[in-house]
Amino acid sequence: MYKKLKYQIYLLLDPAQEDRRWEKIIDYLLETLIFLNIIAVIIETVDAIYNSYKLYFNVFEKISVYIFTLEYLLRLWVCTNEVKYSAPVLGRIKYIFSLSALVDLLAIMPFYLPFTNIDLRIVRILRLFRFLRIFKLGRYLNATKLIASVFKSKKEELILFLLITISLIIVASSFVYFAENQAQPDKYSSIPATMWWCVTTLTTVGYGDIFPITPIGKILTAVIAILGLGMFALPAGILASGFSDEFQKRRQHKEKNICPHCGKEIE
Amino acid sequence: MYKKLKYQIYLLLDPAQEDRRWEKIIDYLLETLIFLNIIAVIIETVDAIYNSYKLYFNVFEKISVYIFTLEYLLRLWVCTNEVKYSAPVLGRIKYIFSLSALVDLLAIMPFYLPFTNIDLRIVRILRLFRFLRIFKLGRYLNATKLIASVFKSKKEELILFLLITISLIIVASSFVYFAENQAQPDKYSSIPATMWWCVTTLTTVGYGDIFPITPIGKILTAVIAILGLGMFALPAGILASGFSDEFQKRRQHKEKNICPHCGKEIE
Amino acid sequence: MYKKLKYQIYLLLDPAQEDRRWEKIIDYLLETLIFLNIIAVIIETVDAIYNSYKLYFNVFEKISVYIFTLEYLLRLWVCTNEVKYSAPVLGRIKYIFSLSALVDLLAIMPFYLPFTNIDLRIVRILRLFRFLRIFKLGRYLNATKLIASVFKSKKEELILFLLITISLIIVASSFVYFAENQAQPDKYSSIPATMWWCVTTLTTVGYGDIFPITPIGKILTAVIAILGLGMFALPAGILASGFSDEFQKRRQHKEKNICPHCGKEIE
Amino acid sequence: MYKKLKYQIYLLLDPAQEDRRWEKIIDYLLETLIFLNIIAVIIETVDAIYNSYKLYFNVFEKISVYIFTLEYLLRLWVCTNEVKYSAPVLGRIKYIFSLSALVDLLAIMPFYLPFTNIDLRIVRILRLFRFLRIFKLGRYLNATKLIASVFKSKKEELILFLLITISLIIVASSFVYFAENQAQPDKYSSIPATMWWCVTTLTTVGYGDIFPITPIGKILTAVIAILGLGMFALPAGILASGFSDEFQKRRQHKEKNICPHCGKEIE
Repeated sequence: MYKKLKYQIYLLLDPAQEDRRWEKIIDYLLETLIFLNIIAVIIETVDAIYNSYKLYFNVFEKISVYIFTLEYLLRLWVCTNEVKYSAPVLGRIKYIFSLSALVDLLAIMPFYLPFTNIDLRIVRILRLFRFLRIFKLGRYLNATKLIASVFKSKKEELILFLLITISLIIVASSFVYFAENQAQPDKYSSIPATMWWCVTTLTTVGYGDIFPITPIGKILTAVIAILGLGMFALPAGILASGFSDEFQKRRQHKEKNICPHCGKEIE
Repeated sequence: MYKKLKYQIYLLLDPAQEDRRWEKIIDYLLETLIFLNIIAVIIETVDAIYNSYKLYFNVFEKISVYIFTLEYLLRLWVCTNEVKYSAPVLGRIKYIFSLSALVDLLAIMPFYLPFTNIDLRIVRILRLFRFLRIFKLGRYLNATKLIASVFKSKKEELILFLLITISLIIVASSFVYFAENQAQPDKYSSIPATMWWCVTTLTTVGYGDIFPITPIGKILTAVIAILGLGMFALPAGILASGFSDEFQKRRQHKEKNICPHCGKEIE
Repeated sequence: MYKKLKYQIYLLLDPAQEDRRWEKIIDYLLETLIFLNIIAVIIETVDAIYNSYKLYFNVFEKISVYIFTLEYLLRLWVCTNEVKYSAPVLGRIKYIFSLSALVDLLAIMPFYLPFTNIDLRIVRILRLFRFLRIFKLGRYLNATKLIASVFKSKKEELILFLLITISLIIVASSFVYFAENQAQPDKYSSIPATMWWCVTTLTTVGYGDIFPITPIGKILTAVIAILGLGMFALPAGILASGFSDEFQKRRQHKEKNICPHCGKEIE
Repeated sequence: MYKKLKYQIYLLLDPAQEDRRWEKIIDYLLETLIFLNIIAVIIETVDAIYNSYKLYFNVFEKISVYIFTLEYLLRLWVCTNEVKYSAPVLGRIKYIFSLSALVDLLAIMPFYLPFTNIDLRIVRILRLFRFLRIFKLGRYLNATKLIASVFKSKKEELILFLLITISLIIVASSFVYFAENQAQPDKYSSIPATMWWCVTTLTTVGYGDIFPITPIGKILTAVIAILGLGMFALPAGILASGFSDEFQKRRQHKEKNICPHCGKEIE
């Protein structure tokens, strides 16, 4: 009976992949609680709201933590039902150090460590990562898989794009630093400071907190900004061809390829 | 005769899909009136112009509303010619609550409710939505259908893109808030305030009203902004492959691939 | 002999499509003169440079205008060699009102109208359009044709994109105007003023001269800016599929299509 | 024995294309030293850090230069092993003036020319170009080749894009200059100054240091900014189709399309 209960709880906590009613309800409740926790973390930072509803926020946080703690302990108990955590002690230790369990633990720990004087509120936002499980479920699964496989198949090109971007930032920042440092020693104070400017320019954010004033600096900036257009174009082009590839592959899987010579199907 | 008149008016008010002269003229006149109304709403807000030509604006508005009211009542009268509104009473009630009729009503109602003390001028801009009917007609119909079907076929990927964007905004805002709040408590005053900054950065608008000044905040921003490049690339890639798909489909429909020499079809 | 000279001059002035040495030299000289004129117009506006080298600029301008005037008159004389301008009088009048001749005339006229007290210097920049002939020649002809045919084949989609953009700007500006006008009456003073803000936001330029401060204005802006991402993606997607189409078409022209049934080539 | 040593050193210094252990170790050591040098150049410019660790930076620089000098001399000695530099004297002179050797020389020379009173620190950043050799090696070779071949095959279109961009900048700057010069003579002081504004607008950087205030200037800017959207789209579209082409070519090379049932090739 103990084993059966354990297995029942295991099924309840597992993401609802099959159409089991109770699994789904528990899953939706937990997702909703996580969602509300994220909203709470966000609006708690608005002082006016927090000061008015301090009590409610604290009560909600307390209840949430108790539920998440219960969930964590239950998961730790029943995790041995999974093959990779099946060893009673070692399996559970392995589970504790799995990514999803660590995120779960980090999200509840700050509550039990009130004596720490550093601000651990940020940790609660980690619950967002739990919320991201939604991508794995239901209707977005196909789209998630598609985007993931596009990124995967074009990984090397995208990493190369990042390397090129970083190289360009270093070179451009060095040149603009030597061009602008004399004219604006407080703004272009060092190459790292210039790199900040370079990123905001190359990505075309352009806050306007720091911009070149010397002719040579402006010409370099113009070149960098137009290169920036190309930078935009590169990942767009890579991903566009990646999506085309992926869609084509899927269509080809659907359409049956029949050899015109012998009439048999080819996989 | 009553029925015939009713049917005649119904044909006149219906979008000119066939080459009937009077339908077209009425349609063009109404479109022009709507267009002029939009222009009027826009330039009325320029105080210098409004104060000089107040009388003309008011007269024009009065005439417009009378015409739109007449049109609304006529449409309400003749709508029973359409199959789905054919029931004399229920059909008309159904018509009143149809989207296009509601927009029509909302656009004229403010005029008849002068005793309301809230500003209802914005409602008149709703006439723009009537103007959007132009997309359904004539030469842009093909392009509209194309873009609509691309968005439809890639709907899931685009929604997923939005979900990823929103998740990124929440996570990034939380981290930057904890990094910058101490240094700039008036600007990064809360996570919602930081989310405003995050949107303007991720979309590379970068007004410059709020930007990070701490090293950790700047590094996080650099990462976010470069991720922003990828964000741009994602919908561009999705839509590009969507358009390619759609064009290919259309071509395949057209071409039957018949050999001009032997007349047989080629796959 | 008169006719032969006229034909010779006609050949000389005609864009060097064949490998005739003199044609090419004249063409290069004229292109260079136009290029130098553009540079002169640009750097003349720098007061420090203009005041130091006033004399040189004026002499250069005088010589340029004399040469362009001579060229204009010669072209007017020999234009009858072209079929469409072959009528001695009517053909020349037709030529005068052709676009390229009008640009040529506008570029020299300000010089002969010194008594006009309005600033006609801008007109000289029109010579740039003459310079654009370079796109028609030599090595970039293929690329120019390609880009032109892509824009042509996707014309409807791009116009529709513009219509959507304009509609979005009108609707967004109206809503943000009513949201921000009370809070910043000097900046969001009217819908046209808000449209200026809207364009700089939607295109992600974001100068920072005008930005929303009310919560509702900020939320609307966030929505607009994220829609702006989609706006970017739309023409990119359209053009990407357009280029793919065009390249595929060209490749198919090259590869000979042979019917598998009768072995004959299909065009 | 001398020849053998020379050949051994040549192999050691050559980028590790084969799996030779010592080559690889030397290569990694040199890459690491270059990487550390780049980091040093960057953080040396932060005065606070430089002043605290001046001694360490100088010692590190000295050691680096000695190693790079040794490497340079060794390379100069053994370069005759390569076919194109095989002539003992002329080959070495030819090697000295090769791009990679010049970069190597420029990166160490400033150290031996301390009597120069101009700032030669920037030259040290040239070592970055040496670091770029990483793109030629190992895992990113494929992606580098791919991106390079895409840029190569679409070179003409990209150059044309640049020509169009430059033309647009010149025309737009001239018009906006004449529109804004009267209203803001200090900001839109000349066409070159306006070109700076135009580049930051067209690339959507929009620092906000300079923006139009006249109605005509704002309308022109709106047109330019929306054209800017198209500018973005053009290279994205070109590169997207370029990547698609390239991937398709590669796939066609791989697949020989043989029917698994009858063994015949299918076109």
